[in-house]
Amino acid sequence: MTRALLLVAVLATPAFAETLRSGSFTLELPLGLQAGAAYVPDQNPLSADKIALGRLLYFDPRLSKDGTISCASCHIPFHGFTDPHPTSEGVGHQHGTRNSPTVINRLFAKEQFWDGRAADLEDQAKGPMVNPVEMAMPSHDAVVQRLRGIAGYAPLFKKAFGTEEITIDRVTQAIASFERTVVSGNSPYDRYQAGDKDALSPAAVRGAALFDGKANCRTCHTGFNFTDESYHNLGVGMTGPKPDLGRYEITKVDSDRGAFKTPTLRDVALTAPYMHDGSEATLREVVEFYNRGGNKNPWLSKEIKPLGLSPREVDDLVAFLESLTGDVTGLEPPPALPK
Amino acid sequence: MTRALLLVAVLATPAFAETLRSGSFTLELPLGLQAGAAYVPDQNPLSADKIALGRLLYFDPRLSKDGTISCASCHIPFHGFTDPHPTSEGVGHQHGTRNSPTVINRLFAKEQFWDGRAADLEDQAKGPMVNPVEMAMPSHDAVVQRLRGIAGYAPLFKKAFGTEEITIDRVTQAIASFERTVVSGNSPYDRYQAGDKDALSPAAVRGAALFDGKANCRTCHTGFNFTDESYHNLGVGMTGPKPDLGRYEITKVDSDRGAFKTPTLRDVALTAPYMHDGSEATLREVVEFYNRGGNKNPWLSKEIKPLGLSPREVDDLVAFLESLTGDVTGLEPPPALPK
Repeated sequence: MTRALLLVAVLATPAFAETLRSGSFTLELPLGLQAGAAYVPDQNPLSADKIALGRLLYFDPRLSKDGTISCASCHIPFHGFTDPHPTSEGVGHQHGTRNSPTVINRLFAKEQFWDGRAADLEDQAKGPMVNPVEMAMPSHDAVVQRLRGIAGYAPLFKKAFGTEEITIDRVTQAIASFERTVVSGNSPYDRYQAGDKDALSPAAVRGAALFDGKANCRTCHTGFNFTDESYHNLGVGMTGPKPDLGRYEITKVDSDRGAFKTPTLRDVALTAPYMHDGSEATLREVVEFYNRGGNKNPWLSKEIKPLGLSPREVDDLVAFLESLTGDVTGLEPPPALPK
Repeated sequence: MTRALLLVAVLATPAFAETLRSGSFTLELPLGLQAGAAYVPDQNPLSADKIALGRLLYFDPRLSKDGTISCASCHIPFHGFTDPHPTSEGVGHQHGTRNSPTVINRLFAKEQFWDGRAADLEDQAKGPMVNPVEMAMPSHDAVVQRLRGIAGYAPLFKKAFGTEEITIDRVTQAIASFERTVVSGNSPYDRYQAGDKDALSPAAVRGAALFDGKANCRTCHTGFNFTDESYHNLGVGMTGPKPDLGRYEITKVDSDRGAFKTPTLRDVALTAPYMHDGSEATLREVVEFYNRGGNKNPWLSKEIKPLGLSPREVDDLVAFLESLTGDVTGLEPPPALPK
């Protein structure tokens, strides 16, 4: 399934722990991330040239109809690779209906988008370019034509793929390769787990215990990346006249009505607002949402049991969530785009 | 100088500590903020109606030439009331040269802008509306005419100011009143200071000691709001062909060349990128900037002495800075704008 080889290395700096090898490329993973969980498709192994090209494409607004919107416009590096607005603004000041999901640690997943409709990051990258309220290009052919008109790209495609040919698959393979290097770990929580007992406050330590125990967060936010990569209906955004049915639109399975993918909680303190529709403003509000048993609505497939957390326990859980802010890579835009 | 009266109240919830009274309005301040330091001009006491009107105006893009840019477009609530881009995008996709400063806790200051060219928040609010690369209105008269054309505003001005008359001074008084209610406190650091020794990690406690001691941060980041509200030259952005001279452009005093106002550090983990030009990507990079003695350049009025922090001490200082993320008010946009 994946060509990625695993190498668990003991490095001098404790900030990195495991190393991912894919093709000829080696990616050092910050403390807390597990190389064995990475997914790199066989047909798109990582390479330094593909990553460098993908970084340029990720930040290039010329991939949009009017040259104003890049991947980075809505998945903003300095906002945890999300958008501080509940919904993002696309070409012509249009808005979609869902909050921009993070690019961080998507290396550790196959399916992408809130509803999982893309099989991998390559497939995901194809969507926004031709979404009429996002980058609004008329077709993938038009994207390719646009890039063929920028002379500086051809040699970079040659370096990355062997020939100068620009195709939509190469474009999305490069973007996906860059995105797989956007990883976050080495958070206070990770350092605590690795033995540095000074890294967390007693409040955050209590919050971690609540997270695993009384608050049941681990039901969905499993593993080192704090997500089961699965879909759940929390009843969020289901009370209006036209509720977003989420995963149901893909599977047409009744139990998927209003279900959305569990997001990672790494760097979650940086990615407000929250939920698939951006309807919760702060981490405290999210915790209080669960604590009261969610929003009552007729679509809820399974009741959320109120958690019975005391105000101090809510504080503790928030302190724990804030301890998941780590070192993230890929923040800086390239110094210049090809001409 | 100020009509604000002080009331130090012991409240049931420890999340609030002091209370600011201005006119007939009472503002509860989150733990850690000092009501006595608030500045509310005599001619613009707070009132609930002015704050409500100001909130609408703050979020209203019709204050800009093409109806696309509001105050909130660049001072984005969910990004610590700053912008995740080094410079913000104004009307027609234009960019200025400085990173959007935060609105948070500006209640505790008179002078505004990175160079302090506005005497108060009222004066500050006048700037962006007619800045050609920001909201780009041709004149303040044009702003007033635009608002007079929106029938729903007149009764709100009457409630706030006694008559329906719309003037630029009323507009900015209302916006400033809303902004004075955007406050952040009750951070883990504040709770630790108030006696909850569980609120900080040992790393953050060590970081707090470094902040006050070895790292000399308190030289400029003084007091409960972590700013002296004064101007200092760190040599940031002074190496290019056209350096931004900052405070010097206002005072024409040589020692103000390249000097910019000390920003608050409250909620600083949420406001990347950093420095007046957005040139540092992460808090760690900012700490490393100081640790190496800043950037060498011919304009530096005073050398920054390298701090000599060990890697662990850098971690500790970052942990302390991250502990300054608090509860912030004013995040939610109004449900609807006047028609």
